[in-house]
Amino acid sequence: MANSKFEYVRNFEQPDNLLPNTWIVVRIDGRGFTKFANKYVFEKPNDRRALDLMNAAARAVMSELPEITIAYGISDEYSFVFHKSCILFERRSSKLITTIVSTFTAYYIHLWSTYFPDTPLSPPLPSFDGRAVCYPSVQNLRDYMSWRQVDCHINNLYNTTFWALIQQGGMGNLEAEELLKGTYAADKNEILFSKFSINYNNEPEIYKKGSVVFRDYELVEPGTHNAAAEADNLAEPVQQSKNQTENDKKRRAKARIVIEHLDIIKDEFWDRRPWLLSNKPGKVPKET
Amino acid sequence: MANSKFEYVRNFEQPDNLLPNTWIVVRIDGRGFTKFANKYVFEKPNDRRALDLMNAAARAVMSELPEITIAYGISDEYSFVFHKSCILFERRSSKLITTIVSTFTAYYIHLWSTYFPDTPLSPPLPSFDGRAVCYPSVQNLRDYMSWRQVDCHINNLYNTTFWALIQQGGMGNLEAEELLKGTYAADKNEILFSKFSINYNNEPEIYKKGSVVFRDYELVEPGTHNAAAEADNLAEPVQQSKNQTENDKKRRAKARIVIEHLDIIKDEFWDRRPWLLSNKPGKVPKET
Amino acid sequence: MANSKFEYVRNFEQPDNLLPNTWIVVRIDGRGFTKFANKYVFEKPNDRRALDLMNAAARAVMSELPEITIAYGISDEYSFVFHKSCILFERRSSKLITTIVSTFTAYYIHLWSTYFPDTPLSPPLPSFDGRAVCYPSVQNLRDYMSWRQVDCHINNLYNTTFWALIQQGGMGNLEAEELLKGTYAADKNEILFSKFSINYNNEPEIYKKGSVVFRDYELVEPGTHNAAAEADNLAEPVQQSKNQTENDKKRRAKARIVIEHLDIIKDEFWDRRPWLLSNKPGKVPKET
Amino acid sequence: MANSKFEYVRNFEQPDNLLPNTWIVVRIDGRGFTKFANKYVFEKPNDRRALDLMNAAARAVMSELPEITIAYGISDEYSFVFHKSCILFERRSSKLITTIVSTFTAYYIHLWSTYFPDTPLSPPLPSFDGRAVCYPSVQNLRDYMSWRQVDCHINNLYNTTFWALIQQGGMGNLEAEELLKGTYAADKNEILFSKFSINYNNEPEIYKKGSVVFRDYELVEPGTHNAAAEADNLAEPVQQSKNQTENDKKRRAKARIVIEHLDIIKDEFWDRRPWLLSNKPGKVPKET
Repeated sequence: MANSKFEYVRNFEQPDNLLPNTWIVVRIDGRGFTKFANKYVFEKPNDRRALDLMNAAARAVMSELPEITIAYGISDEYSFVFHKSCILFERRSSKLITTIVSTFTAYYIHLWSTYFPDTPLSPPLPSFDGRAVCYPSVQNLRDYMSWRQVDCHINNLYNTTFWALIQQGGMGNLEAEELLKGTYAADKNEILFSKFSINYNNEPEIYKKGSVVFRDYELVEPGTHNAAAEADNLAEPVQQSKNQTENDKKRRAKARIVIEHLDIIKDEFWDRRPWLLSNKPGKVPKET
Repeated sequence: MANSKFEYVRNFEQPDNLLPNTWIVVRIDGRGFTKFANKYVFEKPNDRRALDLMNAAARAVMSELPEITIAYGISDEYSFVFHKSCILFERRSSKLITTIVSTFTAYYIHLWSTYFPDTPLSPPLPSFDGRAVCYPSVQNLRDYMSWRQVDCHINNLYNTTFWALIQQGGMGNLEAEELLKGTYAADKNEILFSKFSINYNNEPEIYKKGSVVFRDYELVEPGTHNAAAEADNLAEPVQQSKNQTENDKKRRAKARIVIEHLDIIKDEFWDRRPWLLSNKPGKVPKET
Repeated sequence: MANSKFEYVRNFEQPDNLLPNTWIVVRIDGRGFTKFANKYVFEKPNDRRALDLMNAAARAVMSELPEITIAYGISDEYSFVFHKSCILFERRSSKLITTIVSTFTAYYIHLWSTYFPDTPLSPPLPSFDGRAVCYPSVQNLRDYMSWRQVDCHINNLYNTTFWALIQQGGMGNLEAEELLKGTYAADKNEILFSKFSINYNNEPEIYKKGSVVFRDYELVEPGTHNAAAEADNLAEPVQQSKNQTENDKKRRAKARIVIEHLDIIKDEFWDRRPWLLSNKPGKVPKET
Repeated sequence: MANSKFEYVRNFEQPDNLLPNTWIVVRIDGRGFTKFANKYVFEKPNDRRALDLMNAAARAVMSELPEITIAYGISDEYSFVFHKSCILFERRSSKLITTIVSTFTAYYIHLWSTYFPDTPLSPPLPSFDGRAVCYPSVQNLRDYMSWRQVDCHINNLYNTTFWALIQQGGMGNLEAEELLKGTYAADKNEILFSKFSINYNNEPEIYKKGSVVFRDYELVEPGTHNAAAEADNLAEPVQQSKNQTENDKKRRAKARIVIEHLDIIKDEFWDRRPWLLSNKPGKVPKET
């Protein structure tokens, strides 16, 4: 039995391949996580278990999709970066975003009981949405990453102060909100310090900086590589020998996927890890 | 601290709103499910537990997203249909597909142990990808649904014969494949009947017809409604009173979401369930 | 000499095929025509020569592109409609819009001296931009056409009154603008009649109704055809015999392309000309 | 009279803004120019009048759209390049391509009689279609330009040989085609030289290299600027003072738009004209 009579409906599928030679960022966000966080009584301003679960799911995504070069997460969002030369799924947007969202969700649900052993999940279950954005130059990509990290800082400073006012200062939500309206960073630091003896600088790095996930190789000396210029000069996916491709694959598989809480705005982070922009695996560090 | 310096990166986000007044079909597919089915030793040609799990996840998706009017599933794929007047998420494609894929995945993982109580999941976890397609007319939409159901039939007849040859006929995979090459439906029916005394017509409906998921209201008499013409005549989302909207919402919430294994190619299915095309909830059947 | 080294740049071309089975409207607009109209001293509120030139160019476009079924023009804009089953240029948006804009521009420049024999064109030359929009249902298409004709009416009533106040009433631009602010149609009719003895109903149809361009066949009796429902039911381009296609082509070629100034909002226009929605050429009227 | 009832049709217009921070190339092509060239008896293999007309139209386009930084034309096609920082028409693809196609067509028709004084145009008139492509990096853009110039060379060498065989060698079209099948550049050079005493290197540059159109400033010493790296580093449109913008505008307006026939594949062309990649006007040469 042929299926030809109805098969014309395939012609309505429209291509959605992303522009070649651009960095692809897939950002996913928790859906309705304010409500979800209340349901499972997440700690305020940050719930360490919830962040660790997000990070564990992100690490699993990176492990299943070696084409992802770096990921960055704050709160209930995560950004995954594909190198500009990536041709996974022919760069089809829907395929890229659904694969990431689905894999992330799968691990989030699967690992939930590891991080919240005493509170089993019940419907409605947590879920995530996502979108893809293309960035043409290294500067654009780095500005995107900086944007998210600055957001992390702004939100965390606000939330830390807000919840200190409530939890330790005995204020109501509206009162705290009112007090913080129009304040600058310096004001919030001052409130934290003078009222609650909290030195914001001493807050945990994971809350202040968010989480960076990447394959770890030996750091290089700053100034010895110019991965950014190299990446910008790149015109199309590099043709390399099968040998080289296999070699890269092995090195990538050997590399540990680490979760760090570092400054990704300054040059240093990128200068010392040229593999993030060059897409060439570095030297796998010796295990100790 | 203002975030203005980096915020320009938002300008790279490109809109992906789907054309108004068209039916939106989001089809999701299991990623690498052949391998996955082998890992968990799915029964061949159909694993009832696996299908029930797919259906349970689909029902949960429909329950969390009342804007979905009908869904249809076969094997490791599921199609979800939004009415042409739907304005959920401003019809943004990425938002629609990731929300469905994520919700589906969440329930698939969460409910796994219900359907496979003895085989816990382990990485790599099952995941799904998805895409959205727009269909302008009722005929296009129905042809899409028919296309999937014909595919279900073709595949199931083939698989039933293929696995009978192997499991009962003692053939190897290649041998069975060779034997079936170029055969018609009648040939396969004949093989099943003459060699294995299997009357294909008596196979379970869920395997032959796939699964249709929808909100159940009282069936209407054929010929009393013309929901298809009405839907095609529709020019834009209907403006209705708040009262009416609330009323619809309640009726929708009251309706049971059923999973059936019916012929959705013939007119009857659609004629007797005008709410599927009209998007107006029907009469909630009395509980018995 | 092979060109392979650079040819990869073709991969950056992105498809832009418009959704099948939808009506395609290409609307073009004069660029900077206020300034252009001043340069060539167009008569106010309407310059008959300029409108006739627009219409002549539109007719030429329709004559070169038989796939266009109807066009509608007001002031310095023109809308061209392709039937929902049209597959010209594989429905590539850029190809469709540039072909129409270029052909229209060519005739506008070429025919200029016919309509403005005493004022030769000089740089900067008149030019047009354009865009394509898809409409899924007949109702959407007709609402688009109605939208343009209502706009024609609103603008013409305003402009007729505005310029009467200036040309016959001796007012300045700002004064006239001020006077008309917030007025309704009835008010403007009243001003025209009481101050300038102008009965707006007696104004030329071309100014009040705009210009409709289409292939002319014998009118049918209302109620004998249902081209709208037929068009909405259409699922994909009709497969017809070569003979039939040739036949249609001949009849289309024989049909006169007429420019009329009719009401296209009411049903009658469409009911009596079923070929506009069905895309099946009607009966060519006998020449007299 | 309000137009609200129909105005909803505007919601069907879909945005088509091109990705920011990428080079935009709009390439236009003559429609059916083989037939057109026959109708007006263009000389073979190259008609100098036709090329001069193309170039004059391109120069007019650049003059009306100062945002175009460089254009390159061969035969009946022309490519226009907008700088990656260009925000003209909010980078809307349809607006950019139709404006260029329309302006080009207008001048082509208008100037026809200057270049073909003895053969007036008659319907069907010449027209052009066009498309836009985005290129993320300078290397991509230069590879695009090189691709077109290599094509120019390949085609011209072929055509020169082909028409020599016919016009001087007395061959028929098919015979000449057959003879050239599978030949390399060296073979064609040899045929030209040995059979017709034509040294291909001495052919006019306009035929061998095509035509480059750009604003002319004083050439710089190679190695003194690095416009390419600067352009790649660019993340978003440069914010400059009003003064500077005005200043740039004046310098651009003063610059002569020249038409040259140069090698644009080698670095030298770009190194000595940094304004093409930097978008900063150079020093206007003193008139002599």
